[in-house]
Amino acid sequence: MLPVVVVHGGAGQIPKERSEASTSGVCSAARAGYAILRGGGSSMDAVVQAVSQMENNPSFNAGCGSVLNVKGEVEMDAIVMDGKTLGSGAVSAVRNIANPVQLARLVMDKTSHACLTAEGANQFAWAMGIPEVPPESLITEYSRMRWKKNLAPDANPVECQMGKMGTVGAVAVDSEGNVACATSTGGMLNKMEGRVGDTACIGSGGYADNQSGAVSPTGHGEAIMKVTLARLILFHMEQGQSVEAACDLGLAYMKSRVGGLGGVVTVDPQGHWAANFSSLQMAWAAAQKDTLHYGLYTGEHFTQSIDTPQ
Amino acid sequence: MLPVVVVHGGAGQIPKERSEASTSGVCSAARAGYAILRGGGSSMDAVVQAVSQMENNPSFNAGCGSVLNVKGEVEMDAIVMDGKTLGSGAVSAVRNIANPVQLARLVMDKTSHACLTAEGANQFAWAMGIPEVPPESLITEYSRMRWKKNLAPDANPVECQMGKMGTVGAVAVDSEGNVACATSTGGMLNKMEGRVGDTACIGSGGYADNQSGAVSPTGHGEAIMKVTLARLILFHMEQGQSVEAACDLGLAYMKSRVGGLGGVVTVDPQGHWAANFSSLQMAWAAAQKDTLHYGLYTGEHFTQSIDTPQ
Repeated sequence: MLPVVVVHGGAGQIPKERSEASTSGVCSAARAGYAILRGGGSSMDAVVQAVSQMENNPSFNAGCGSVLNVKGEVEMDAIVMDGKTLGSGAVSAVRNIANPVQLARLVMDKTSHACLTAEGANQFAWAMGIPEVPPESLITEYSRMRWKKNLAPDANPVECQMGKMGTVGAVAVDSEGNVACATSTGGMLNKMEGRVGDTACIGSGGYADNQSGAVSPTGHGEAIMKVTLARLILFHMEQGQSVEAACDLGLAYMKSRVGGLGGVVTVDPQGHWAANFSSLQMAWAAAQKDTLHYGLYTGEHFTQSIDTPQ
Repeated sequence: MLPVVVVHGGAGQIPKERSEASTSGVCSAARAGYAILRGGGSSMDAVVQAVSQMENNPSFNAGCGSVLNVKGEVEMDAIVMDGKTLGSGAVSAVRNIANPVQLARLVMDKTSHACLTAEGANQFAWAMGIPEVPPESLITEYSRMRWKKNLAPDANPVECQMGKMGTVGAVAVDSEGNVACATSTGGMLNKMEGRVGDTACIGSGGYADNQSGAVSPTGHGEAIMKVTLARLILFHMEQGQSVEAACDLGLAYMKSRVGGLGGVVTVDPQGHWAANFSSLQMAWAAAQKDTLHYGLYTGEHFTQSIDTPQ
């Protein structure tokens, strides 16, 4: 059953013209994570690699391609968590960095802290030798167009956000049974400056514990936070629920209790996995036993050999 | 049994010369919160009032009296959560604000977001008409002395932090059975600029749900985050554990799993409450049925009439 990696490219309603790029993006990220696992690499290395690749892909709302805040700027959140130690690292409202997920990992590995925010996070990046990138290098034509469109006084940022690819994330379990998660996002379209969503928040935007599993969520950040979705799903698994059932219970609770839609990717240390969502769509892909699994709409589940030429 | 308010002034090892001020500070904060509840006010109003009073009290590590970061500056985190709606508001790494807990409440009440950080949080404060205070007005002689002392290369910030009063917090249930929590902190002594601890993080630094209860923790922030302590304790209560047992289970787990010490104040919607800690001391006070309860060392539990002249 081991190793496994499962990735998502955000929950929501994905515009038709972007669905192909989303699907190929998550498949490529899952392949990249799986290559690391197959080579004996750790689940942490695999999730950081998979998420970095989606940050670099302008189709997703993370890194290059992030949505813009109300001032037209990119501010990003990211988190990683290691199920062996319960150690985590996060950054919030960080700017001018190509790969926030890698910076989050450095927070975990190189500091005694679990989260650095805003200017402090950027100073840490500088101290670690991470190059600053020009702000405009993270901004796509598409995100600028959507930002302008949603400045209209009657625009609903929650609705707009759900119409755009959300947060990206990955979970993995390596051949030693260690689980890890990583999540990265540009946040919510037209958010206030300094808004921090679920992604930087342990238990909401991700959680990993070798005693239960790892979860990376996506969807309406404030709803995910209200129910601490990642931790909630793992509590269900601790109570004996299957990965699949725990995801559905968590998502159903978020919908009924606070009206929130979203999706999750989840693994357990035995290699059971799920990619479930209550939104209309979620681009997801998983790799296990040399098979690539992927889908976009509810009920969709395609498979192919991991070695099929792309 | 209703209403109830329970407050803490931080877990750790409190220097003898500061223990009296800590005890009188938490008693006064509990009285202030209880006066609101007795007057028919909401649990949210009560916890914000109690925490504001401790922020204004230089004996505590929140608001005026906050510990200093590595650059000798004050950066504060705060959170509130409303158990009726699961709505929450938080600020992280905010500067030059007398009462971060009140700003956190405005984030909940006046924005569609759950957390604002750093400069964005300060801009929001300005937009809400919250006056900026001079940075030095939040810095005490004591915190400057400790900051200098702990710049020594062999200083251990975790140990130092535990030797200082920590985070302040409060939980309450009002006569309508609504629960709420609030937590506020200057964070960890000599922390990196931009470090965000548990306090701004829902589920770690606080959680409130009318279906189970409300928790405000204190202690080593990074350990609290690893186990999402507030949410963990409420999961135990959802599984049928008493308030007291759930707090002990949560704290024991944090100690055994990640070696973390701390304390919590907890209420349930029926008015059961606890103030438990695994650290050497925690200044705490509670008010219920016109009686004030308080203590500082393990096993200490004093009571007096709430109307006893102070």
